[in-house]
Amino acid sequence: MPVELNTADPDFEAAFAALLAARAEFDTSVDPVVADILADVKARGDAAVVEYTQRFDRVHLTTDALRLDDETVDAAAGQVDAETLAALNVAAERITRFHEHQKPTDIAFTDPTGVRLGQRHTPVDAVGLYVPGGTAAYPSSVLMNAIPAKVAGVGRLVMVVPTPDGIINPLVMAAARLAEVDEIYRIGGAQAIGALAYGTGVIAPVDKIVGPGNAYVASAKKQVFGTVGIDMIAGPSEILVVADAGNDPAWIAADLLSQAEHDAAAQAILITDDADFAAAVGRAVEGHLKTLPRTAIAAESWARHGALIVVEDLMEQAPPLVNRIAPEHLELAVGDPDALAARVRHAGAIFLGRHTPEAVGDYVGGPNHVLPTSRGARFSSGLGVLDFMKRTTLLGCDSSALATIGPAAVRLAEAEGLQAHGLSVALRLNMPRPDARDGA
Amino acid sequence: MPVELNTADPDFEAAFAALLAARAEFDTSVDPVVADILADVKARGDAAVVEYTQRFDRVHLTTDALRLDDETVDAAAGQVDAETLAALNVAAERITRFHEHQKPTDIAFTDPTGVRLGQRHTPVDAVGLYVPGGTAAYPSSVLMNAIPAKVAGVGRLVMVVPTPDGIINPLVMAAARLAEVDEIYRIGGAQAIGALAYGTGVIAPVDKIVGPGNAYVASAKKQVFGTVGIDMIAGPSEILVVADAGNDPAWIAADLLSQAEHDAAAQAILITDDADFAAAVGRAVEGHLKTLPRTAIAAESWARHGALIVVEDLMEQAPPLVNRIAPEHLELAVGDPDALAARVRHAGAIFLGRHTPEAVGDYVGGPNHVLPTSRGARFSSGLGVLDFMKRTTLLGCDSSALATIGPAAVRLAEAEGLQAHGLSVALRLNMPRPDARDGA
Repeated sequence: MPVELNTADPDFEAAFAALLAARAEFDTSVDPVVADILADVKARGDAAVVEYTQRFDRVHLTTDALRLDDETVDAAAGQVDAETLAALNVAAERITRFHEHQKPTDIAFTDPTGVRLGQRHTPVDAVGLYVPGGTAAYPSSVLMNAIPAKVAGVGRLVMVVPTPDGIINPLVMAAARLAEVDEIYRIGGAQAIGALAYGTGVIAPVDKIVGPGNAYVASAKKQVFGTVGIDMIAGPSEILVVADAGNDPAWIAADLLSQAEHDAAAQAILITDDADFAAAVGRAVEGHLKTLPRTAIAAESWARHGALIVVEDLMEQAPPLVNRIAPEHLELAVGDPDALAARVRHAGAIFLGRHTPEAVGDYVGGPNHVLPTSRGARFSSGLGVLDFMKRTTLLGCDSSALATIGPAAVRLAEAEGLQAHGLSVALRLNMPRPDARDGA
Repeated sequence: MPVELNTADPDFEAAFAALLAARAEFDTSVDPVVADILADVKARGDAAVVEYTQRFDRVHLTTDALRLDDETVDAAAGQVDAETLAALNVAAERITRFHEHQKPTDIAFTDPTGVRLGQRHTPVDAVGLYVPGGTAAYPSSVLMNAIPAKVAGVGRLVMVVPTPDGIINPLVMAAARLAEVDEIYRIGGAQAIGALAYGTGVIAPVDKIVGPGNAYVASAKKQVFGTVGIDMIAGPSEILVVADAGNDPAWIAADLLSQAEHDAAAQAILITDDADFAAAVGRAVEGHLKTLPRTAIAAESWARHGALIVVEDLMEQAPPLVNRIAPEHLELAVGDPDALAARVRHAGAIFLGRHTPEAVGDYVGGPNHVLPTSRGARFSSGLGVLDFMKRTTLLGCDSSALATIGPAAVRLAEAEGLQAHGLSVALRLNMPRPDARDGA
């Protein structure tokens, strides 16, 4: 049974704090195993990758079969039915169009002292996209990770996807084709992350690695961070629904379950101002659970991590709770969602109104579905075009501008005891050498 | 002696690759010690912080003396001379003005299908700023880390700075005052990072931690990442100067030394198209080294990591080398720096022309001096306002918009085997229940 909380109860604060604190921490137990795999891939390259792929995926590949050739990819993609392919197309187009809006604007101006200032954005050269194999191989995630990279202008987008027992997922191949992935390798696990980070004979190294994966993949990404960039390490999915009694309880129950079905560790929370509605949603969840294929997972998530929270006043009491939870997904299923949204400071994505179930955003809304979990929305953002670009600042002085601002730099360099810093400015200004001035 | 390379030499490629590969990797040897300190601070709070501060900084503090009171801060800041304070003011004003340009624009539009789409930015609530004690306590770094946070709208900016043997750095206090830091605690090391991340009785936890530190601080930041956000882990400083023979060798030599003097592990590289000029710069470096106070550090950096690279054609051959180095700081000391800059894809900051020594940007240029090192400019950016804000995307459908885009979402949910996702959309569209359709 999910936790039931009511802000009117005297122990509400303690119970709510316990709910926040209960979210799982990252699993570090696999770190040493992963470190060994990474070191081996770094040292032995393709030979190590081939061996681990045989051991973990039960696929024997020669080095030159690590990369999926175009014919294989096209043949697999061709197995996708027309209706699903059309839906993938809708998704790809809407995701592309939204992310085009995220392209940054460069800065360039000359200030009143004559100093030229600027900031410009350039894409990352090469990006690796990890795609899990098996049941968690989601074509929508391929689109959500690959399209922002392509919109950013990434020249080389490399996908790795394990093919356990040799099975290639047609949906993933179709999504990769739609998103214009440039290279696909049939490898996974920590060995694939190592191959992307360090390069092998067959696989040229990339500059940044994104995409979801299991504990081994997450650990490997953390360990290669620095050598390459990485995206956030995702935790279990979460949804927080703020809903009044004007909703159909069956709709809201389905919304809660749409995240609960991802993972037994996922979390679904309802905040409402009507205890009877909360109870009705609870009953509707039980009803849906009787018929859903992923009932075992969803029921465990709901029982272990679910919560029904009743407040007296949604407008006043929900936003502070929302901000403390800082949810990955926030549904505002109320009559005036914008007024509530204006009071929310921390959420990965907000879904406005009664007709915007979170799942529509998972696929075809347009914004990204890769979002910060585990209260990460307090300090981080969903995946976007900026994650595949970087800023370079520009500064330009002529002799007159340097004469204006340079003396302050010399003074501060001396105060910090960095005389070569000061010297580099002072020489250009024909100032006394700071080191001479200090008698050093 | 620094390495001397010439693109005309047959072994150039091998020697250049070796230069790139020689950059140090992160030190992980202190990780276990740091993990123990963090766990102890998490468990025992202020008591642990007080004990570690006594042990490592030789300062005995009661719990209520961890925070520096306003009188102490003002008294210390008051010791800074007027000329230095004026220079700090110039720096703070110029940094503030540049970073104001980095404030992002929100997105809000309704697309042709009637779907409302948006993206908005909110500041991080609370940020911790680590400031090293002792010789590496730089007031300029306080400004560079604190001002972007304040421009972003961070409400609570908390500084931690160790005071070894009780000594408080007046310049750091003056910079903190200028940057409007809200709280200052006289603690450092891994224990300060733990206190900021987990909170103690006296120190409320923050959401993100930034700022430079030693190996213990860097390890602690990496270990608390996830609980809070962190900035990049900085490696040793680097400068790459591209200069033709039209420069005064003494100026360029001072520029190279301005980074070499930071750290024996720092790296300074010159690329020029004139072998005689390269030799003259080398001689000028030796000359400067005779008089600079930090000669021991700078000389070791120059001998171990320095390089003089001669190319035949700056315009054609320098940019590819620059992009492979992806330097933290790039000076283009040539007649037409913009033409060269246009060919550079990877650099933290670019300094344009003969009168823009890197050091002017360390203090008073305006752009941030916290920049990616160790080839990180391939995938990451200098510190900026966006590092203290996060994006929340918004999606809103009415029943008509959902009717247009919803069916594609239902189709993809079914294809991915996520029936509760499909159900949440299908119920609102009065579509047949996907789970019923699948006969589950």
